[in-house]
Amino acid sequence: MIQRILTIILVVFLPLTVIGNLMHFDEVLLFALACITIIPLAGIMGRATESIAIHSGPRIGGLLNATFGNAVELIIAFLALREGLTQVVQASLTGSVIGNLLLVAGLSFLVGGIKYPVQKFNPSIARTNSSMMMLGVVIALIIPAIFSAQNPNIANNLSIGVAVVSLALYLLGLYFALITHRHVFHFAGDMEEEVAEWSMKKASIILALATLAVAYVSETLVHTIETVSHTLGWSEVFIGVIIVAIIGNAAEHSSAILMAWKNRMDLSMEIAVGSSLQIAMFVAPLLVFAGWFLGNPLPLVFSWPELAAMSLAVLLTAFIANDGESHWLEGAMALGAYLIIGIGFYFL
Amino acid sequence: MIQRILTIILVVFLPLTVIGNLMHFDEVLLFALACITIIPLAGIMGRATESIAIHSGPRIGGLLNATFGNAVELIIAFLALREGLTQVVQASLTGSVIGNLLLVAGLSFLVGGIKYPVQKFNPSIARTNSSMMMLGVVIALIIPAIFSAQNPNIANNLSIGVAVVSLALYLLGLYFALITHRHVFHFAGDMEEEVAEWSMKKASIILALATLAVAYVSETLVHTIETVSHTLGWSEVFIGVIIVAIIGNAAEHSSAILMAWKNRMDLSMEIAVGSSLQIAMFVAPLLVFAGWFLGNPLPLVFSWPELAAMSLAVLLTAFIANDGESHWLEGAMALGAYLIIGIGFYFL
Amino acid sequence: MIQRILTIILVVFLPLTVIGNLMHFDEVLLFALACITIIPLAGIMGRATESIAIHSGPRIGGLLNATFGNAVELIIAFLALREGLTQVVQASLTGSVIGNLLLVAGLSFLVGGIKYPVQKFNPSIARTNSSMMMLGVVIALIIPAIFSAQNPNIANNLSIGVAVVSLALYLLGLYFALITHRHVFHFAGDMEEEVAEWSMKKASIILALATLAVAYVSETLVHTIETVSHTLGWSEVFIGVIIVAIIGNAAEHSSAILMAWKNRMDLSMEIAVGSSLQIAMFVAPLLVFAGWFLGNPLPLVFSWPELAAMSLAVLLTAFIANDGESHWLEGAMALGAYLIIGIGFYFL
Repeated sequence: MIQRILTIILVVFLPLTVIGNLMHFDEVLLFALACITIIPLAGIMGRATESIAIHSGPRIGGLLNATFGNAVELIIAFLALREGLTQVVQASLTGSVIGNLLLVAGLSFLVGGIKYPVQKFNPSIARTNSSMMMLGVVIALIIPAIFSAQNPNIANNLSIGVAVVSLALYLLGLYFALITHRHVFHFAGDMEEEVAEWSMKKASIILALATLAVAYVSETLVHTIETVSHTLGWSEVFIGVIIVAIIGNAAEHSSAILMAWKNRMDLSMEIAVGSSLQIAMFVAPLLVFAGWFLGNPLPLVFSWPELAAMSLAVLLTAFIANDGESHWLEGAMALGAYLIIGIGFYFL
Repeated sequence: MIQRILTIILVVFLPLTVIGNLMHFDEVLLFALACITIIPLAGIMGRATESIAIHSGPRIGGLLNATFGNAVELIIAFLALREGLTQVVQASLTGSVIGNLLLVAGLSFLVGGIKYPVQKFNPSIARTNSSMMMLGVVIALIIPAIFSAQNPNIANNLSIGVAVVSLALYLLGLYFALITHRHVFHFAGDMEEEVAEWSMKKASIILALATLAVAYVSETLVHTIETVSHTLGWSEVFIGVIIVAIIGNAAEHSSAILMAWKNRMDLSMEIAVGSSLQIAMFVAPLLVFAGWFLGNPLPLVFSWPELAAMSLAVLLTAFIANDGESHWLEGAMALGAYLIIGIGFYFL
Repeated sequence: MIQRILTIILVVFLPLTVIGNLMHFDEVLLFALACITIIPLAGIMGRATESIAIHSGPRIGGLLNATFGNAVELIIAFLALREGLTQVVQASLTGSVIGNLLLVAGLSFLVGGIKYPVQKFNPSIARTNSSMMMLGVVIALIIPAIFSAQNPNIANNLSIGVAVVSLALYLLGLYFALITHRHVFHFAGDMEEEVAEWSMKKASIILALATLAVAYVSETLVHTIETVSHTLGWSEVFIGVIIVAIIGNAAEHSSAILMAWKNRMDLSMEIAVGSSLQIAMFVAPLLVFAGWFLGNPLPLVFSWPELAAMSLAVLLTAFIANDGESHWLEGAMALGAYLIIGIGFYFL
């Protein structure tokens, strides 16, 4: 049902975006068209990746999901980086982290909590993920910011060093979850039972086409950000943190909330928290390396508002999730935190 | 016994304060008289509120306790705000939060821990409260401070936005504790068994009279702060954070410690942590709205020492309380933290 | 086996250091000789202290271990303080805290985790220690830094006040662990079964001689730091935080890792976390008092990079340890955090 609506949106809005580009539509309109088009495209990419993952067996499949799950964010951020829009890249990374931790997890807890008084998920996974976020989001981003504040010249060297450590830890985390401690991550079993929606070949073709379309549409998005910012009076940081992050993750968001509604909280948490980790410890390091090759270095030196937003989101999520239980008020708290941070970026 | 002493103090010191005001006593003496008078008045207000709460049944009663439990702080802060003493208001809010979390909880753990090697309380409530403090104290106050540091013009808009979110979450928290998850907050059952000290009518009259007296005496307190600060060489912030906060909460403090001595730790924690939440998420937002109406805006932009004191107090309390157990050393730690922070404000 | 190697190192390198001093060897070489010599000396001091502790019975023994366990750091820091190298003292304190929390605990979790999928330790002790670190490392060091930033004149008074509170809490913590809550700290039982390596008399003589030798060699170390810093282009802070801290703790490090390999995680954690607490709440306050007597005041005002490193190390360790379980990935996370911080200090 949802998928049918998304397909209709895609069939209508992808051609519209192309026509809009060719006919030089108003840039704010183009931005809106691109935003709407990306939502179903991201959904299709996710479904194609999942089909390929199921065909590839649980280990390789888990790896594929863990590396291509945020392909849309990676593409948007890469294009923005190529344009030298470093601040937009940092803002969209920030937005993806807090959006996944506060908005997605918050909506999941709230929606699931309306149906069930208390929902349970694996506390060992929750705690391991909290520690990973503490390392990969808080430590890996606060240390470069505080040390660079003493001596700005070290920002780039420090960023590359931190990116290497973060990426290595992310890969070790995958090795842990997929190989040495597979039995702990019992929800991996859920996936094995699933039937692939598409054949390997069909999924690969769909994935390739959708990736091309996303790249195309993302380019429109990136090019119009500046004009949208001027016209609507929203800062580029607000657009990056809130708008771009919500669009890039919309498909995932809906799956996480659906899983919460079905009381499959382990999957819901994996989407929300796993995505955050992937953004901070896989996408961000890749972008640092890409920036180095492109000659547009991306320092991992975020602004204090961004750092505060991410660190507090990690702490609140850990406080909420570490006991392996959730209820609707915890969802409301996460959404409240997202609102407070969103208000902050709006006024900034 | 304690109540008899408090009544005697009131009967002696309330007239003395009135006389002192009329005869223009030395302001430091007046400040001391006002301080002493407020302690029993706050106690009587608390007892009258409780009687009305018992008569009103558990739901309305819980709501009354949750909204009028810190009426004294609200009155003092409101009068200080009307005089434009924004810093004193912020300091007394800070002092109430850390006083409840560190001094009251610390003394409760220490005193109870002398009698019992380990004391237990409901860990689900403790964790929900920790998350609420993380949201309502840490996030709701750090975000405005960090974002306003980038652009001071946004402080007032941001404060009103954050105040609305905080207050909404506080009300949702009451709905959670009193309606949807009443069974979790089992100590609510304790209250139902209690017998009201006064009839509804008598309690209402006492509450009204005590409120008038508090307003009157608080006015004396607020007017003399500046002189006391000059004469004794204590900063207004120190007076607000330490002196005013201890006085306004003295009656509650003694109940919390008494409950800990009786091993009723759930009630003791509810007084200590519940009060902190009420100050941060109910009293503070009301004051922001009041400041807006009075034309003396109260920005939720606290100083860094205040923010550090509150955030660290929340983190330490969460570390200590989240396992649902306490012992005397944890009480000593909380008191040690209070001492360190107190020394800091003294020297500032 | 390890002890035999250490003895050989000592027999070779202690005379070499003496000769090097007399013959005015190159200072970088002298620094290296002193570093190598301190490692076995620290090990011998630890073993002698343990023998004396076993002879003295569990209570006095626990006290001895808790006060002389970091004698080497104390001696090095004291000599550096006498020379007025305040920054080196602060850096070596920082390095000892993060080295114990991240490097030692990290290696223990990793090495133990290679052999055992999950290792367990007493969660009550872990949580009490986390709260103590929150108080003694985070609160006791962040409050002076933030308050002194507002008014630098208060740094020394504030430091002495905080040092008194910290030391008092440390002593209360010993009273808790050795007297009132002995039964909780069940690993204390492990020690009672152990047989002392040396007789009381022999151990005392060895301890005295080793202490003299450490003082002698440390003096060489301290005197050559400045030259090493200039010659190798490493900052004094990097030498203090990373090099000196690793050397001073090398012997302890190896015991902690050995215990983890034997799955005696309670002892391993006690060495790692207990040492950190001892540095922050016993060694640091003693140095503040010593600095006051020497006329070289040591303010407890650490730099922001040092504070960030210590606070984040405490938070990560609490996240990892509070559930009383560890696995190899948690070890890798702690080491990753140590690497990130180490890279930061290297580039600074």
